[in-house]
Amino acid sequence: MRFRLAFFTSGLLLVMLGMAMLIPALLDYAQDHVNANAFFMSSFIALFIGGALCLTNRGDMEKFNVREGFLLTSLSWLLLCIGGALPLYLSNLNLNFANAFFESVSGITTTGSTVLVGLDKMSHGILLWRSMLQWIGGIGIIAFGIVLLPFLKIGGMQLFLTESSDQSDKIIPKSRELVGRLVYIYVGLSIACAITYFMLGMNPFEAINHAMTTLSTGGYSTHDASFGFYPSASMQLAATLFMFLGGLPFVLFVKYIFLGQFSFHKDEQVKAFVVLVIVASLCITIALVMNQSEHTLSALVLSLFNVVSILTTTGYATADYTQWSPFITGLFFFMTYLGGCAGSTAGGLKIMRVLVVMKGAQQQLYKLIFARGVFIAKYQDKVLDSPFITTVMAFLSLYVVLNVFLTLALTWVGLDIESAISGAATAIANVGPGIGNTIGPAGNFSSLPDSAKWLLSAGMFLGRLEILTVLIIFTPYFWRD
Amino acid sequence: MRFRLAFFTSGLLLVMLGMAMLIPALLDYAQDHVNANAFFMSSFIALFIGGALCLTNRGDMEKFNVREGFLLTSLSWLLLCIGGALPLYLSNLNLNFANAFFESVSGITTTGSTVLVGLDKMSHGILLWRSMLQWIGGIGIIAFGIVLLPFLKIGGMQLFLTESSDQSDKIIPKSRELVGRLVYIYVGLSIACAITYFMLGMNPFEAINHAMTTLSTGGYSTHDASFGFYPSASMQLAATLFMFLGGLPFVLFVKYIFLGQFSFHKDEQVKAFVVLVIVASLCITIALVMNQSEHTLSALVLSLFNVVSILTTTGYATADYTQWSPFITGLFFFMTYLGGCAGSTAGGLKIMRVLVVMKGAQQQLYKLIFARGVFIAKYQDKVLDSPFITTVMAFLSLYVVLNVFLTLALTWVGLDIESAISGAATAIANVGPGIGNTIGPAGNFSSLPDSAKWLLSAGMFLGRLEILTVLIIFTPYFWRD
Repeated sequence: MRFRLAFFTSGLLLVMLGMAMLIPALLDYAQDHVNANAFFMSSFIALFIGGALCLTNRGDMEKFNVREGFLLTSLSWLLLCIGGALPLYLSNLNLNFANAFFESVSGITTTGSTVLVGLDKMSHGILLWRSMLQWIGGIGIIAFGIVLLPFLKIGGMQLFLTESSDQSDKIIPKSRELVGRLVYIYVGLSIACAITYFMLGMNPFEAINHAMTTLSTGGYSTHDASFGFYPSASMQLAATLFMFLGGLPFVLFVKYIFLGQFSFHKDEQVKAFVVLVIVASLCITIALVMNQSEHTLSALVLSLFNVVSILTTTGYATADYTQWSPFITGLFFFMTYLGGCAGSTAGGLKIMRVLVVMKGAQQQLYKLIFARGVFIAKYQDKVLDSPFITTVMAFLSLYVVLNVFLTLALTWVGLDIESAISGAATAIANVGPGIGNTIGPAGNFSSLPDSAKWLLSAGMFLGRLEILTVLIIFTPYFWRD
Repeated sequence: MRFRLAFFTSGLLLVMLGMAMLIPALLDYAQDHVNANAFFMSSFIALFIGGALCLTNRGDMEKFNVREGFLLTSLSWLLLCIGGALPLYLSNLNLNFANAFFESVSGITTTGSTVLVGLDKMSHGILLWRSMLQWIGGIGIIAFGIVLLPFLKIGGMQLFLTESSDQSDKIIPKSRELVGRLVYIYVGLSIACAITYFMLGMNPFEAINHAMTTLSTGGYSTHDASFGFYPSASMQLAATLFMFLGGLPFVLFVKYIFLGQFSFHKDEQVKAFVVLVIVASLCITIALVMNQSEHTLSALVLSLFNVVSILTTTGYATADYTQWSPFITGLFFFMTYLGGCAGSTAGGLKIMRVLVVMKGAQQQLYKLIFARGVFIAKYQDKVLDSPFITTVMAFLSLYVVLNVFLTLALTWVGLDIESAISGAATAIANVGPGIGNTIGPAGNFSSLPDSAKWLLSAGMFLGRLEILTVLIIFTPYFWRD
């Protein structure tokens, strides 16, 4: 095990984070000075530690094995979370470290749960930093999901093995080109989103911030009322569109833009995702029109926005949907677990896994009736064999078990059962809002005890890195030769 | 597809049920006459319809195929549930059919949720009938689980394939002997339990009723206060013991009594079950002593009784444990899903499946690190191959999906989210009490709307027959040649 590799990568990323801090530093310096010092100091610390890690661990980085891959991923993300918390901790917000860390983890994992109140009057540097954390986390997870995860073979992601990731000694050179293209698309979509928001009436600062947290399906806002601050239907539909794009597999954008192949309509994940959005939105629209006698069109916009927000794990809210009806609350609660497409910025179980599990279950049903029959389950023309289906189902089981343990831990530190169950779900799936008065869409995580914040931070971290990446490091197998 | 077979078996079972009704009929006739007529009339109807089904569908019953197995199981249980509801519907309780059917399904599936209040003053015939339904359902499910399920290969039950069930043309003759032995043990344990209860202070009627609902892990009581009516620690510990025995695989009793092989301590399910009971009871005892400053010994009895009651899916309550603390509520909530050992009277997922899923997940973890390594998962010395693990995990997925749909359906008809989630869980796992004020351990199902009762009845029915047995009949595959 070469720790050097993990240290070097983490150091490099920390240096980049430190440089990124200079943007809010300069903004705060230009505007009101209040938190400029906090950002400069944090930047210095990040650059110093990151630089030291890089310089002391230089060497050949072209090859690494699976175990080193797990270690460098977990360590890098952990250091980024700590680094991201520094400016918040040192700022005028008077946060203790549990709060600052929670906010940073919620940012980098693109969860979007917040412990801050009074966003509308907050220093612009802080607001920008929160958005930037999500934006950085978003591109980070796409690169991780497309380049590293298939190579690590976690929870069925080997389905997305491409030429660039099927051999460890080729992974870095080939994936550099892919990551470059992903960044190009990510930046392009973000700019398009910001311009759209600006044209529909946001001021430039709000437009840039919301664009960053929309494309990353993060969900931090510059307003306590979240996206409910913008009642315009066109604004909400624009946000719905860009959240939806953020929840699609980014490789399809690469294929379209760089290879001219439009294949969204041929992708099983995308098709299932679209069906899911439509079915859930229609159910909720009907329930709203029937029970709350909402106007049909406004009910449709409301449903669509909030469904896409939860399914893409963005977590913006335009209304407290938990007040609508138990059925709607139930739908949103279960949607929390699902998430968007694998290979996007979205969290959760991922549509791909849901499809594989469904196909596996269907195959079983068939086999029960025709013991000697042959029924081949396929995903995107690839045959799903038993070991592969087991991989995905084992991931699902682990996902369930982690939810159970986190829920119990949260009740142990005093959360009520509703907040605990939905808090664990929303953290692990990186969604944002939970259910109930405390952490529901109209609530806030600030009133939770610090112990709960640490637990939820761990949940967000584990969920974002597909659980196994982190857990595996704590098994005895991992350290065996 | 020979429907004849399904009709004949259902008819035969209905005749037996009709004869069983004569017992409460005579009891009520001897005591207060109030419901004697209801029982006689129901008995007549059951004997008439059952007899007609038998006589018109006689023939060679020695061989049947898998599909006929599914059909006859589902149809038999459905007819038993309807037959069991008749005396309740015709009695002086003034129940509509939704209520009578719910109570009968809850009885036969050994769930134990009730819509009746005022049990303490109820006619003895009715009380006895409720207990008898559970007792009949208990032995029914053991026979089904040991003889039919392995043959139908549902959710990994093929693990329990024995010489008596591996060939369809031999299943009936050999299994007759096995079923005879199971009945012998079931009756023996029930008598032992009744005598124990009687010696510890119950009157004979109470002792017989509670013995029947203890061994079948059903949980109907003759008191509104459930087992809380008996505050004596020795009585509660006796009940704990017999519920525990009811949650063990009955084949092990057969081995012990008829073959002289004591192998409980070698059985992986039993070992895991014991560990689970101990760990959960200790957690709750500690939480009780810490937060509620209970006396340690009384806390231990309380914890042990209620943990065993929920894990074996009995559902007796000696206290409203949902009032103790959110952590304890959470533990009981998750225990609702688990259930006892496969091959017992208990419902739920079953310990065997939990073990297989854990072993499968562990194997995946190992494979992630050692891509070319060999790690063989075993259960009771049998190698668990990928297709087998997939079977069990597919069952788990289906269990989750059914819970989600039932929960949403329950919220649709107006239940709050807490009652809906825990109501679906407690119905599908055949436990009894849910969480929350309405259907919690101190509550009752009578106040639910009829639509919710139908939905919950369907959930209990599906859960008891391991979901697939019933669902499969509604797939197009099933009717294909």
